[in-house]
Amino acid sequence: MTTDNGQRSTVEQTVDKILHGNIRATARLIRDVEDGIVSSRQFLKALYPHTGTAYVIGISGFPGVGKSTLVDQMIEAYRAEGKSLGVLAVDPTSPFSGGAILGDRVRMQRHGTDPGVFIRSLATRGHFGGLTRSTQGVIDIMDAMGKDIILVETVGVGQDEVDIVTTAHTTIIVLIPGMGDDIQAIKAGILEVADIFVINKADREGVKKTINDLQAMLDMNTQRKSKGGWRPPIVATEAIRNRGVPELLSQIEAHKAFLFSRTKTQLNKRLRKRVLQELTDNIKETVMTKIMAELEGSDEFEQMIDDLVKRRTDPFTLCDRIVAEKLK
Amino acid sequence: MTTDNGQRSTVEQTVDKILHGNIRATARLIRDVEDGIVSSRQFLKALYPHTGTAYVIGISGFPGVGKSTLVDQMIEAYRAEGKSLGVLAVDPTSPFSGGAILGDRVRMQRHGTDPGVFIRSLATRGHFGGLTRSTQGVIDIMDAMGKDIILVETVGVGQDEVDIVTTAHTTIIVLIPGMGDDIQAIKAGILEVADIFVINKADREGVKKTINDLQAMLDMNTQRKSKGGWRPPIVATEAIRNRGVPELLSQIEAHKAFLFSRTKTQLNKRLRKRVLQELTDNIKETVMTKIMAELEGSDEFEQMIDDLVKRRTDPFTLCDRIVAEKLK
Repeated sequence: MTTDNGQRSTVEQTVDKILHGNIRATARLIRDVEDGIVSSRQFLKALYPHTGTAYVIGISGFPGVGKSTLVDQMIEAYRAEGKSLGVLAVDPTSPFSGGAILGDRVRMQRHGTDPGVFIRSLATRGHFGGLTRSTQGVIDIMDAMGKDIILVETVGVGQDEVDIVTTAHTTIIVLIPGMGDDIQAIKAGILEVADIFVINKADREGVKKTINDLQAMLDMNTQRKSKGGWRPPIVATEAIRNRGVPELLSQIEAHKAFLFSRTKTQLNKRLRKRVLQELTDNIKETVMTKIMAELEGSDEFEQMIDDLVKRRTDPFTLCDRIVAEKLK
Repeated sequence: MTTDNGQRSTVEQTVDKILHGNIRATARLIRDVEDGIVSSRQFLKALYPHTGTAYVIGISGFPGVGKSTLVDQMIEAYRAEGKSLGVLAVDPTSPFSGGAILGDRVRMQRHGTDPGVFIRSLATRGHFGGLTRSTQGVIDIMDAMGKDIILVETVGVGQDEVDIVTTAHTTIIVLIPGMGDDIQAIKAGILEVADIFVINKADREGVKKTINDLQAMLDMNTQRKSKGGWRPPIVATEAIRNRGVPELLSQIEAHKAFLFSRTKTQLNKRLRKRVLQELTDNIKETVMTKIMAELEGSDEFEQMIDDLVKRRTDPFTLCDRIVAEKLK
């Protein structure tokens, strides 16, 4: 009872600190979420009722298209409007690209002393829950902190990143001119996920062609109808010279108005997708952690691994046996 | 009974075809594995006893370092030795980079008519089992086909790719000169996973510096001891001019000799890691498919999602309830 009360009050205290914007408490919880520390769940749980008010913007694209510079300019523009921001740079390319994250942080450093901007990066993918789980956890934390806008930049372009940005309210895909040669080959998937296309480095040669190619693809793409009639605008920017950023912000505003318009069907679709993913990731991690904790280290399991290495059995037979044992 | 027998004989027939190198049957199974078709498991299961003889080489590195050209030259060199090859290009950057995969295929096309070379690419990650599961499935298929060597090229550099290449017998990390500026910032992780470093495009400026930086990092890195005394050699190549490839092949041979030397402790570690991952991925996919199949579509689950969107509950409480219901 005493321990229970003591623990509850620690959780309450920490949650209170985070809700009041205490950086230290927030940073510690984010680290625990990233590291997959089990106890972080009770804090996230207590914070959850305070979430749901931030507007989440996902920004994705190939490495080198200038996402970080663009995000930096977006921060500047939103700050000028008096909005508070959470910024999350997600880099699943770890362990290869510590450099990229460091670079991002340096690029955004001018906002480092602004109390209205809270910047963090995530690299660890966790064990079973995936990067999407820890990303969603950190978004929830920033949301609970009361940030008006959360910018989620994914450094890479893998499936994890697509999963992440498509649960945002508005998903921005950043391209650069000269990708035009390949743009015909880019899978239709890119058309499905983008709410807004940005062609950054628009001073480069080939920008017209890239825009035209993209327009042609959008014209042909009939599946866009599933987005409820929203046709993604194409915004040309030169982030490094801060050109095109105001237009980008007004397109985001237009998309937001679309999401919230009339029946809010589109908004609800997004929100349902996001909570479904958060729930699924949690189930996956919890189930696998429990099952593997029981298996690993046991003599029986060591024997299984031995048998597999020696081809005395196969992983499908063992999997079915384990699942039958563990699942009701 | 009839169906069972009928089905069994279909499996046997297909397995027999694959073991005898029938491209059509093999290609169809690979597509099913990639698409996560449940029935593909029985074929993989039947093939499994025929696996374990191929030597698997993983090749990873940032986009643009010339991995595909290098792989193409390695194919040529191994073919000259009379060895048969399976080549698997894994691209988890889908849906963004259909272009990259197409490019790879074009680059390796000169081997397309050689019956001793079997080339496939994988882009789909599957639902819960992850890209590592389908990759391992395809490696097993190529192994069962009797390929002497399997080259697994990962197009990206995310955690998925690291998981993939580190289960290979020999893991090659490809860098290029000029990454030197960032090399200090690259996480120690890269040192842990590489058995061999390739500095490709070695005609470029800065190659000496990149090699020196890398050597210095290897000197400092004490955790290498966990690799049982193997210090990864650094091979300079110009894949496009076929320079350095023979040296790369002899370093692979040296690493193979190291793995198989004396007690085979190192080899066993690799093999155990690979089968453990294959088993875990299978469990994860099977468990999640079963749990979600029961949940999705039920009124109760729709209500849960509704409650989450409206913040009437949180994903952690729901997760714990579901896990308690489903797990023994």
